Amino acid sequence: MQNYLGIDIGGSSIKYGWGNSKLGLQHYGIHPFKAKTLGQFLSAAAAMFTTIESLHHMQDFTALGIATAGTISKANGHLVGVNPNLPFWVDQRPDVIIPQTFDNPVFSDNDANLMALAEAEGLKIDNLIGITVGSGIGWGIVSEGRIFRGSHGFAGEAGHAVSVENGAECTCGNRGCLEAYSSVDGIKRLLAQRSEHYLQYSLPELIKKQQQDAIVNEVITTGSRYLARAIANAVVLLDPEAVVLGGGAMDLGMYCLETMQAEIFNMLPKAHQMGFRLLPAHFGNRAGVMGAIVLCERNLT
Amino acid sequence: MQNYLGIDIGGSSIKYGWGNSKLGLQHYGIHPFKAKTLGQFLSAAAAMFTTIESLHHMQDFTALGIATAGTISKANGHLVGVNPNLPFWVDQRPDVIIPQTFDNPVFSDNDANLMALAEAEGLKIDNLIGITVGSGIGWGIVSEGRIFRGSHGFAGEAGHAVSVENGAECTCGNRGCLEAYSSVDGIKRLLAQRSEHYLQYSLPELIKKQQQDAIVNEVITTGSRYLARAIANAVVLLDPEAVVLGGGAMDLGMYCLETMQAEIFNMLPKAHQMGFRLLPAHFGNRAGVMGAIVLCERNLT
Repeated sequence: MQNYLGIDIGGSSIKYGWGNSKLGLQHYGIHPFKAKTLGQFLSAAAAMFTTIESLHHMQDFTALGIATAGTISKANGHLVGVNPNLPFWVDQRPDVIIPQTFDNPVFSDNDANLMALAEAEGLKIDNLIGITVGSGIGWGIVSEGRIFRGSHGFAGEAGHAVSVENGAECTCGNRGCLEAYSSVDGIKRLLAQRSEHYLQYSLPELIKKQQQDAIVNEVITTGSRYLARAIANAVVLLDPEAVVLGGGAMDLGMYCLETMQAEIFNMLPKAHQMGFRLLPAHFGNRAGVMGAIVLCERNLT
Repeated sequence: MQNYLGIDIGGSSIKYGWGNSKLGLQHYGIHPFKAKTLGQFLSAAAAMFTTIESLHHMQDFTALGIATAGTISKANGHLVGVNPNLPFWVDQRPDVIIPQTFDNPVFSDNDANLMALAEAEGLKIDNLIGITVGSGIGWGIVSEGRIFRGSHGFAGEAGHAVSVENGAECTCGNRGCLEAYSSVDGIKRLLAQRSEHYLQYSLPELIKKQQQDAIVNEVITTGSRYLARAIANAVVLLDPEAVVLGGGAMDLGMYCLETMQAEIFNMLPKAHQMGFRLLPAHFGNRAGVMGAIVLCERNLT
């Protein structure tokens, strides 16, 4: 049985694990880091590999997969554009973190793409959209069992699809993006504009306040509705077997899956209604690591 | 050199032609028909094949491709759902029109999908979205040189993506669809709601009136803006090399391509702006026939 190492690079930790899609994860760990420069980040990654090597012989991994925040260019394999949670982690190949002694194959992709791939593998589905709702909103598309990357590698950036013409400011510099309304950071920004006192609350606190506070309720409900609309519009365009919704905010119950399912259903043409399913993500925090492992498997078989 | 027969089934005519993608169309014809029943339509199709057989030996065509209005199910190859311009042309396999003596391969797909495939072939592009603006709005997606059909064959129905929550009524039964604002029929319906006197005008007359009539201008400008937004949102999701815009209304100049290109550009994240092109359709009325021929070629090679 092949054994693959999966790495998931996020804003404040690197997750890692090994196994394969049949047996699942045989080991899983989280290596938190604080880094403001590329040098600090690379040191943290090196420390993580020292930990891994103390547990498992690296060369026994058939391949290594990397899930990472950020967009990877098809042209040169580099991270391109803006990487809000890891601002220094651009213009690099993700595999720069791998110890030079490792000479088996290495594959990399965006973390939302690999979340979608992990869920597709778990559900045994070939056509799927995966969405993670957290500080931002990540989308990944799996088509006929493979990640849909688009012509430059920029597919799935639908967090920056326009929900409202000339709407709220987004971190990307544009206005009215889905992320500006439906992500955790977007919701926090919108609430702070209504009243600065909302700045003191954590997301779980805001979710609790929803029942008593009309403004919190309005902002979260609007975020849910815009996300539902964006999902419905993606479904008529792409006709997936399922849309899987995950990420930290979903785990905390920020949006109600049943409400969204009903809203999406009402927006779909009849033909699409029949086949459509909105599902909760299965792999949670481990989706990136699992997706990186599945990426290795699909590229090697 | 292989010679393929392409057929394009529309609401009031069947277009046909033969050739291949290297040499282009060697012959092109239009067979108008009036039919209110399936029987009348099949008779019209049979008459068209008699014409074709008088010009070319059928069995010399390596294969036959059919472009048709309507959605084709992946599960059984039948036309499914509602087919507004050919209401009786459902629950059938499109190849029911082919003479039984023809025993070379036959391939069928939706007309908008095949418009996109023809334009992709013409531009030598592997990832493209094709959109036709006419009485409805058809979308086709080509990904890595092949038509993107989705899990049930319903991909590309983005004419029924929601532009406005609880907006204008659409022929599909839902509200606020792109088609209800940006298609010719949608624009005519919206104008008729403002004043019945608009019912007397043809589309070319309405386009001319745009400069003097503020209401006509507002409705057409809004249609253009919603279409631009839908295109921008599809581009962030799918990252195509180009979007090709065609159809009768574009040929008549209902929307200005330069205005739309600028609007779309402003809505895109930076990474997508660099690679994006909005192009006029090249094949016009012949896109369906040409796409049907390219479909044969790609399925056989």
